[in-house]
Order: sequence, then structure tokens, then C-alpha cells
Amino acid sequence: MKRRTFIQNSTIAGLGVTVLGKDEPKKSSPFKSNNGKLKVGVIGTGLRGQGHADLIWRRDDCDLVAICDISQRMIDRTKAICEKHGKKLPTIYQSGPHAYKEMLEQEDLDAVIIATPWRWHVPMAIEAMEQGVYVGMEVSGAASVDECWQLVRTSERTGSHLYFLENVCFRRDVMAILAMVREGLFGEMMHLECGYQHDLRGVKFNDGETAYNSGAEFGEKGYSEARWRTQHSVTRNGDLYPTHGIGPVAQYTDLNRGNRMLFLTSMATKSRGLHEYIVNHPKGGPDHPNATVDFKLGDKVTTMVKTVNGETIVLHHDTNLPRPYSLGFRVQGTKGLWMKVRDGIHIEGLSKSHRWEDSKTYLDKYDHPLWKRYEQRAIGAGHGGMDFFLMHSFIEHAKRGETPPFDVYDAASWMAITPLSEQSIAMGSAPVYFPDFTDGKWIDRKNTFAHGDEY
Amino acid sequence: MKRRTFIQNSTIAGLGVTVLGKDEPKKSSPFKSNNGKLKVGVIGTGLRGQGHADLIWRRDDCDLVAICDISQRMIDRTKAICEKHGKKLPTIYQSGPHAYKEMLEQEDLDAVIIATPWRWHVPMAIEAMEQGVYVGMEVSGAASVDECWQLVRTSERTGSHLYFLENVCFRRDVMAILAMVREGLFGEMMHLECGYQHDLRGVKFNDGETAYNSGAEFGEKGYSEARWRTQHSVTRNGDLYPTHGIGPVAQYTDLNRGNRMLFLTSMATKSRGLHEYIVNHPKGGPDHPNATVDFKLGDKVTTMVKTVNGETIVLHHDTNLPRPYSLGFRVQGTKGLWMKVRDGIHIEGLSKSHRWEDSKTYLDKYDHPLWKRYEQRAIGAGHGGMDFFLMHSFIEHAKRGETPPFDVYDAASWMAITPLSEQSIAMGSAPVYFPDFTDGKWIDRKNTFAHGDEY
Repeated sequence: MKRRTFIQNSTIAGLGVTVLGKDEPKKSSPFKSNNGKLKVGVIGTGLRGQGHADLIWRRDDCDLVAICDISQRMIDRTKAICEKHGKKLPTIYQSGPHAYKEMLEQEDLDAVIIATPWRWHVPMAIEAMEQGVYVGMEVSGAASVDECWQLVRTSERTGSHLYFLENVCFRRDVMAILAMVREGLFGEMMHLECGYQHDLRGVKFNDGETAYNSGAEFGEKGYSEARWRTQHSVTRNGDLYPTHGIGPVAQYTDLNRGNRMLFLTSMATKSRGLHEYIVNHPKGGPDHPNATVDFKLGDKVTTMVKTVNGETIVLHHDTNLPRPYSLGFRVQGTKGLWMKVRDGIHIEGLSKSHRWEDSKTYLDKYDHPLWKRYEQRAIGAGHGGMDFFLMHSFIEHAKRGETPPFDVYDAASWMAITPLSEQSIAMGSAPVYFPDFTDGKWIDRKNTFAHGDEY
Repeated sequence: MKRRTFIQNSTIAGLGVTVLGKDEPKKSSPFKSNNGKLKVGVIGTGLRGQGHADLIWRRDDCDLVAICDISQRMIDRTKAICEKHGKKLPTIYQSGPHAYKEMLEQEDLDAVIIATPWRWHVPMAIEAMEQGVYVGMEVSGAASVDECWQLVRTSERTGSHLYFLENVCFRRDVMAILAMVREGLFGEMMHLECGYQHDLRGVKFNDGETAYNSGAEFGEKGYSEARWRTQHSVTRNGDLYPTHGIGPVAQYTDLNRGNRMLFLTSMATKSRGLHEYIVNHPKGGPDHPNATVDFKLGDKVTTMVKTVNGETIVLHHDTNLPRPYSLGFRVQGTKGLWMKVRDGIHIEGLSKSHRWEDSKTYLDKYDHPLWKRYEQRAIGAGHGGMDFFLMHSFIEHAKRGETPPFDVYDAASWMAITPLSEQSIAMGSAPVYFPDFTDGKWIDRKNTFAHGDEY
């Protein structure tokens, strides 16, 4: 039995609590070993995992003691980052796709970060929760609704926490808008839009050696995300990547905390963009083998969600066509709205009637306390600094064994958008209902995200 | 039998064509009487009808010979416009709600414009088509799908044309984008957005005397649109006003001309805005009788349409909340996209990768020939000049007895969005299928809108 598991079981036994499927994950005791430093492992040291490792190595309150990957190249890159920081090299697990199990069994980890291809997230998170480790799981859509349930039931049964690593919740403008929503500037929430609109053609295909726009290969001949991510566009038609949008919107509307997503309908366009990219690429062409691939993913997938509290949420998924990057946020309440694509805001009583204002004044005024406090430390962190705040929050929550602000119920319901949207599209945009992954606990749960300036 | 009816019946008899329900409206012979001037009537001389009358009186190729309304005040305002132009006063029909029938029977009209409250459009248009008059019908959503069918079958049976007066198709930027779509700059059409996002609270309520923001009254105590339009927000939950959005999008995607709308799903938020407006208005308040009205219209209604050719169309309806005016156009194809709310455009191969450009350069370059030619004449016409182009097109088509660019099939299918969205919302966003109002003629029909610089 591992240390963490032992502590949890002791705590639970001491309280006389029987662990049933319907209990929430228990708060763990703060860790005490390793000179007060959190022992962290990273499973998956691709480009994303390397970014997380870099942020961990910048800190002095945690030790990155183990890493796991199947790619020697990615492991070497990670070791180079470690050397740059002058830190002790972590133990390396690379014996194969299941080396992560060895790592979880042999290391006495306090926390683990999972940054592998999407389909590995859930089995790895489940294994880590079984081992009593505080789990940070990277974002993705789910393969099935059932694997969302598996996450929930495993967390409830083991008492292990799952922190769903949705970094966009920490974006500076997103957090300023959250402060405004909480102050009531927008009034009661009514209609929200969000999504993932990012021309990924140069990510989905490359030359097998370099990451961006370098060729027309994917799968076994591809490099980095092209190795595994592109296949989802071949086989699946739905909102494949919903969490960067729904994560922030969940904070604005208190999803799973007094509110929840009730049902959705989804609609997809025809599929053209990926095929045309292959045909038109200098290293592709009409005779390239990939020119015969039938991509199932509609180029633009639009999903509408209705919440219990009567808001509507539109999610845009748009990754196969030439376009500027945009998560497409629109936050609209009874007193005003913000549209990021315009950098425009309108607040009744403050803005001139029927007129947009530049949002900058408001975003500056409502800059979140976390950003004010840690702005300097965030410089150089990924995605405009927001990855610093994510990792900071993860580490601080893990150190205290606290329930994460985006927990296993959020992971399950946000990830479920993917298979539910596939179902809706497959049935001619029929409405599909969200399971209540909380079994009714959403009625009383409270939003704990970013109420102060600590973490 | 009226002159126009006689001419049409003679023509049809001469060609040996039997008029069946499934025939398209026949091309009428050009009119010859009245010294070569088109004889026009206007039913409904509210603020909208007055605008049309003003534009007719500016022209010397048509005579406005008759008007009809039930409001002495509106008739007096119309007479004042006539006097300003120094034109002969039209015959006035004002004996009651059915005076329009007298007018259609007693006058020998070539064309008639219908600009009455929404629920009167269809019966008046049907009556006018029965009389062989070339009909210009103002836009609205339909009350039922069946009344859309009635429009179609009446037009087919009588051979009379119906011009659906959708002015936004003539908006300068909308027409420039159409030129770009036709040149292929956006590639194949994929995803389009549009709608009607207009804070109408000050239109839906007034003091019964003046039009905008003057009070909390509607219905019998209201003035102008508040007299009749607001009641739709009390009783109906759907996209009440879809045509300003779908009209332009129909031109981009050739709806009813090689393409058609196949099904939709619709979703509405809760209703808050109109109640709060009444409660917070200085002449309203929590004790105002209208504070107890239960408005059924969700403040934001979102509708997704799937077309036969695989495009998706999102329609936004947003008229009860504080916000800037926006029809929300997004035109996205395989090679780029335009988003009006940002005045942003991205065209692959022209724009920097992953970057927006200001749309102005493109809108100037692709300025439509009609706007180039008639810009000066459009000055002062309503809605930024586009009402001039609409009326010009209507009159020139009517003079020639030509099939309108937005005809009875467009009217039927665009207006049907309203009852179909109500059905979808009532059934928890279930997909609802569009009737094919053309009975298959959409397969071969061609888009005739704005291919030159004449009209």
C-alpha cells in the first residue's frame, strides 16, 4: 500500500465514513515528507508535458522526481530542460505504453501530471487515482460518456482528486470578465459563446520531423500531435475539443455548482479543409496517399447547450479552415455583453446606448488579483502566461490536498460534450441530454475558482 | 375582371398553358397604360410605408395613386410627404381594417406595397395576387407554415408575382461580400451566421404618442410598432424576425436555387429583458400593469440551419437586452471568412496566415456595380441608402413584370423559420424539417439577384 493511499484510508476509517460511489472525493491530508516538497511525476513529455515540466522546475516547493514517455526524442528534450534549470534528473520510465503503471507503482508520488495523447488521459488518470495520487489531467474531449463516469466513480471510490488542467480559465481577459460577472456588471447571465477556432491544418499534418506546416503526413509518419490527433478528424464528427471554451463559461455560469448543462444539439458542415490542404501542400498533391483519406470531421461544428438555469451556450469548433485564432467568447447578460472578437463591450448605464466601447478600460479596471500579484512570475510561461497560473494553482491545491476548482465532475461533463455532440450530429442534430455526473450534488456545490489572490 | 388579370389570363391562354398549383408564377406582359407610368398603391402608411411612399414620389416612372391605412394620424403624415414632393394626392382608403380590399377592387393598380403589421401581410398579399397585382410585401416571420403555403399556391395559381421586400440584401457591405463570394474569394461556402440583434425595448414600449423609449405601454395604449409588434413577444417564443439575416445569406448560398434549407434546431434563453425594462422605466415601475405581463419570448433565440449542400447557418435573434445593433454576419468558406462585428476579414493567400485584416480595403475594391452607379440617388433613403436600391429594384421588376430576385418561394421559406423555430423550441430543440415550398423546382432555379448594374 502506498503512503498516500494509507493516509487516505486511515483518515476515512478514523471518521467512520464508508466510501461509496456517491461520496465526493475526500480532502486529503497535506503531505509531510520530502522536506516539505511536493513530489511530482509527469506522464507524457511531448511539447505540452515539457512546458509543464519547465514550470515545475522553476519552483522550489516541488520536485519533479519521475517522467514517463515512449519517445526517446521527447525524453531527451525534457532532460535538456532539466539541465537548463540545474535540477536533479528525474527517474525515467520509457519501457513502453504501460510504463506509466510502473512509475505509479514504484514512485511515491504526491501528484502526477498527465499530458499524453487524448485517448490515454482517462486510463492513466484512473490508475493514478487508484494509487492515491493527486492527479492533474490535461484537457481533451472524451471518447465515450462511459469513460467520464469511470473518472467520476474512481475518484469517488478512492477519494483521490482530479484537477482538470484547463488553462484558458486563467487567461487574463477571461479572469477580468469573471470579476465583472461576479460584480454583476453584466446582470443575470443569458447567452454565452465560446469554442475552439484555430486553423490546425499545420498541426494536423507535418513532415514527421518538425512540428508546423512542414508536410502532409500524419499518423505513424507524423510528428508530435500529427501522430495521434489527426486520426480523430478522420474518424469522428463532433466538437472534438470543447474545454477551452466551456471551461471559462462554466465559471461565468457556475456549471455543476447551482447550475448544469441540461442538453445540447450539434450540427456539422461538410468536410473539405483537410483534404484540400493535403492536395494543395507542396509536399502533398492529388497523388499523395493521404489525398484519398475520407475525413469525417465537419470543418465547422456548432453546438448549442441549454442550462438548467435557462442560459444558452454556443460552442464553435473550427480547426480545418484558414482563419485567425479565436476562442470566440461572448458573455451576455441582462445588463450588457462582451464580444472578444471585437474587443467590444456594452454595459447598460455605463456605455452610450446602442454603442460598443473598447473593452480595454474594463479589462484593466477589473484585472484579477491573481494577475496583479503574479504577473512578473508568469512572464515566459506558455500561452501568454496563463500556464503559470494553471500550474501554480495545481501545485498549491495538490500541496493542500484540496478539491480542485475544476474537478472530476467538471472534467466529466465538459469532456462529455464531445461524444454527446457526435451523437447529436449522427442523429440529425437531435437534442441529447447530459448525464448529471454529480448525482445531484450540483445543487449545493459552490464555485471555488479564483476568489482570492493566492492560487 | 381587372386589366392586369385580363392580360395575364390572355397570355396564359395564348400560350396554351394550364395554370396548375405546381407551375411557377408566369412572367406578366409589361404594362402599357397610364402614359407608361407604373400605378402603385401602398397598404399600410405607418412609418415604414411612409418611407416607401417617399421613395416612390421621388421617381418619375411611377404614380402613387392610392394609399390605405386605419390611422388618420399616419395618413396625415403621408399626405404631408406627398405635398412636400408636390405630387397629386393619392386616393385614400381608410374605412376600416378591410379597406384594402376596396382599394384593390376599385383601383386599377399595377403594383402594390404592403407595409402593415405582420399578421396582415399574408392575407393582403393573397388578395392582391388574386387581383393580378404585382405585390411587394414587407418582411416578417410567418404565423404558420400553412400561410407560407397559401402564398405559394396563390402565386402559382394566379400567376401573380410576389417581391419579398428584404432591404438588407442591398446593404453596401452585404453586396460587396456577395461580389466576393461570386468571385470565389471565400472558396466553397461552409458556415454562415446572421440574425437580428437590435435592442428593441424602446420600440416595443412607448408612451402612446412618440415612437422611441418614451414609456412602458404597448398594445392599444402603444404607438406605432408598440401597438402590434410587442404582442408577439408576449405570446411567441421563436426567431420572430429572421429575414434580415437569412436574406443575404440566401444570396451567398443560393437558397431555393440549387440549394435549400433542410432542417433547423432552435434554442431560447429565459425571458427577463422586457419585464425588467418595464419595471425600471421612469414611466413604468413594479406597480405598472405591464409589470405582470409574462413575456414568452426568450431574450436570445439561437437557430441552427443545415442546408442540402452541407452548409450550416446560425441565426441570432436578440431584441430584449441592452446591446449595440448588429446583424452579426459571418461568411466563411474553404478559403477565408468575414466577420462584420470585427470588420475583419481573412482570405488565404492574401491575408497573413492566422491574422485578421480590416475588411475596408476589400469592401471598397468589390463595391457592387449597383452602388457605384446609384450611390448619389441613394443619399437620404432609409437604412443607409439601401431602401433606395430595394424600391428601385421593386419598381423596375414590376415595370417589366419580371420574377423578383426574392420571390414567393423565398418569402415562404424565409418566413417559415419563425414557426419552425417555435416548434423546435417547444419540443426541446428537436430538429424540424423545412417543407420544400418549390416542389423540387429549387434544383434548377438560378439566382437572379444583382448580376448587373441596372436594378
